[in-house]
Amino acid sequence: MTVREPLRPVLYDDARDLVRLLDQKALPAEERWLELSTADAVAAAIKDLTVRGAPAIGVAAAYALAVEARRGAGPERLRAAADLLARARPTAVNLAWAVRRMSARLGAPAADVLAEAHAIRDEDEAACRRIGALGAPLVPARARVLTHCNAGALATAGYGTALGVVRAAVESGNAISVFADETRPFLQGARLTAWELHRDGIPVTLLTDGMAGWLMARGEIGCVVVGADRIAANGDVANKIGTYALAVLAAHHRLPFYVAAPWSTVDLATPTGADIPIEERGADEVVMLAGQRIAPVGVPARYPAFDVTPAALVTAIVTERGVVRAPHAAGLAALASTR
Amino acid sequence: MTVREPLRPVLYDDARDLVRLLDQKALPAEERWLELSTADAVAAAIKDLTVRGAPAIGVAAAYALAVEARRGAGPERLRAAADLLARARPTAVNLAWAVRRMSARLGAPAADVLAEAHAIRDEDEAACRRIGALGAPLVPARARVLTHCNAGALATAGYGTALGVVRAAVESGNAISVFADETRPFLQGARLTAWELHRDGIPVTLLTDGMAGWLMARGEIGCVVVGADRIAANGDVANKIGTYALAVLAAHHRLPFYVAAPWSTVDLATPTGADIPIEERGADEVVMLAGQRIAPVGVPARYPAFDVTPAALVTAIVTERGVVRAPHAAGLAALASTR
Repeated sequence: MTVREPLRPVLYDDARDLVRLLDQKALPAEERWLELSTADAVAAAIKDLTVRGAPAIGVAAAYALAVEARRGAGPERLRAAADLLARARPTAVNLAWAVRRMSARLGAPAADVLAEAHAIRDEDEAACRRIGALGAPLVPARARVLTHCNAGALATAGYGTALGVVRAAVESGNAISVFADETRPFLQGARLTAWELHRDGIPVTLLTDGMAGWLMARGEIGCVVVGADRIAANGDVANKIGTYALAVLAAHHRLPFYVAAPWSTVDLATPTGADIPIEERGADEVVMLAGQRIAPVGVPARYPAFDVTPAALVTAIVTERGVVRAPHAAGLAALASTR
Repeated sequence: MTVREPLRPVLYDDARDLVRLLDQKALPAEERWLELSTADAVAAAIKDLTVRGAPAIGVAAAYALAVEARRGAGPERLRAAADLLARARPTAVNLAWAVRRMSARLGAPAADVLAEAHAIRDEDEAACRRIGALGAPLVPARARVLTHCNAGALATAGYGTALGVVRAAVESGNAISVFADETRPFLQGARLTAWELHRDGIPVTLLTDGMAGWLMARGEIGCVVVGADRIAANGDVANKIGTYALAVLAAHHRLPFYVAAPWSTVDLATPTGADIPIEERGADEVVMLAGQRIAPVGVPARYPAFDVTPAALVTAIVTERGVVRAPHAAGLAALASTR
């Protein structure tokens, strides 16, 4: 089966020099594209989750520097823009990685700066397709695959990481279906994963975040596939809050727990998960929902945006360079020297 | 410390013969009381979660039969009302228990029928206070207590079961605080537990359902206390969906997992959790939130309203008759013969 060509949520308009972002805050009600002409505007869009997903915010930051270069920004402004973008969100390492890679080219002609950003985008989509090809054989036949948050086309340059594995499995003829955790508080599962898979004709059923354990106990889930925001050198995985609980539940039920991410998400400079900074976002994003207050005024809320799953709970990490199993540290180190 | 007198969410107006229910769908935005004069209206309020919580719906059903008796319903109408009420929701055994107890009195004078309903209410609140007294010593000093859904004053005749343990711990001078899971999809934690504890001056912080595992891993949670909708003879516990996952996570982190419930929740006629009927509610309650659609049209959702936690994951069951630890079946059987 060939599924519909997936979305590309971050684009560059070469003719008009604009960064084009699919507004992920407006989905699923509306498919609205924003056109941004400054790094400031792109940094704000990264911060407020208009564009999210570790690979996608890396691509957006690359294009933000390209748009500044093409619109004549000097070295000082470009350096300031690079700083601003790198600091927009702390956990996903792809953001810092993309800014670092772009920074090496900021002295080049603007056309070359843009070409580098296009290369980052193209390489990310190619990486996703390779991740899909390597990950698809891991998915049991006709499995019901649980995923959390959105690690799909919307979170990447296109095709997706966790959902890239799902897409490739479907394309290979495996009649799987997907359970999507709604992923409170931002509802990336309900709003984005459900929308993206439904659009592409892949069967998807929505769950609230508390249901997955019970469905595992009843034998209704075949494996778990999630993305990552940063993978430490020892194989610990930072990903959307709630991922860690799924990994514990999967281990308890002896289900495979797979992490799919491009190599740019692997951060060998971070020894373990304990060294990964975890973004704490504002309580307002928890107590307000769809513009309405769901909790009493005066009640505080926590919002760690990510958690860390220890490598011991990860059955395999699927990157475009290969599949890593325990011992994860050795496997990641071996892939580091390959291309 | 003495905390504020807790709410009583289900009352009977003896002068006007009306069942008074605090509308739990309107909280926390509004504290609105409904006055109902028929069993049909009360059954509808049980079904649509205007009143919820296993002990509270038992009390509501008892008063529904009292209001019919006091307004002159004959034996046939009373039997039909009892049937309707018993079938309003399938999982909580307190509902069937209260209806059965009332049915034995439906031939008596209306004043006696009402007296029996008042007795059910009074006994439930007394049971909650005893549960609190027995459970409070189990809570570690200055612990951060995780709870799920609402097993508070709002879920009972008053005082609460899980939150009864919390209240009694606070009253005994233990400076605990509470983490409340928001409990999607109906948000009983965000809307009801947070509201009730905040009203009573007990420190409460809201979490989304995916966060608890990560906070356990970071050592931020001291124990888990939840209520129950039905406890089987072997100690398996049906409770709000998401409870099972917390029990697995608590066991993984070697944290105590306590279930607090009145004896009327124990169903010795149900051998194991596998024999407990689990209500599946409509997908609309998942995909619609605060009147807005959060998932794309055409995407299905699951909504098992409860799950079953095996006795092996339950550190102790606290009832007004005593505290039961493993082997749970023997402990429950021993309490069955006490008063």
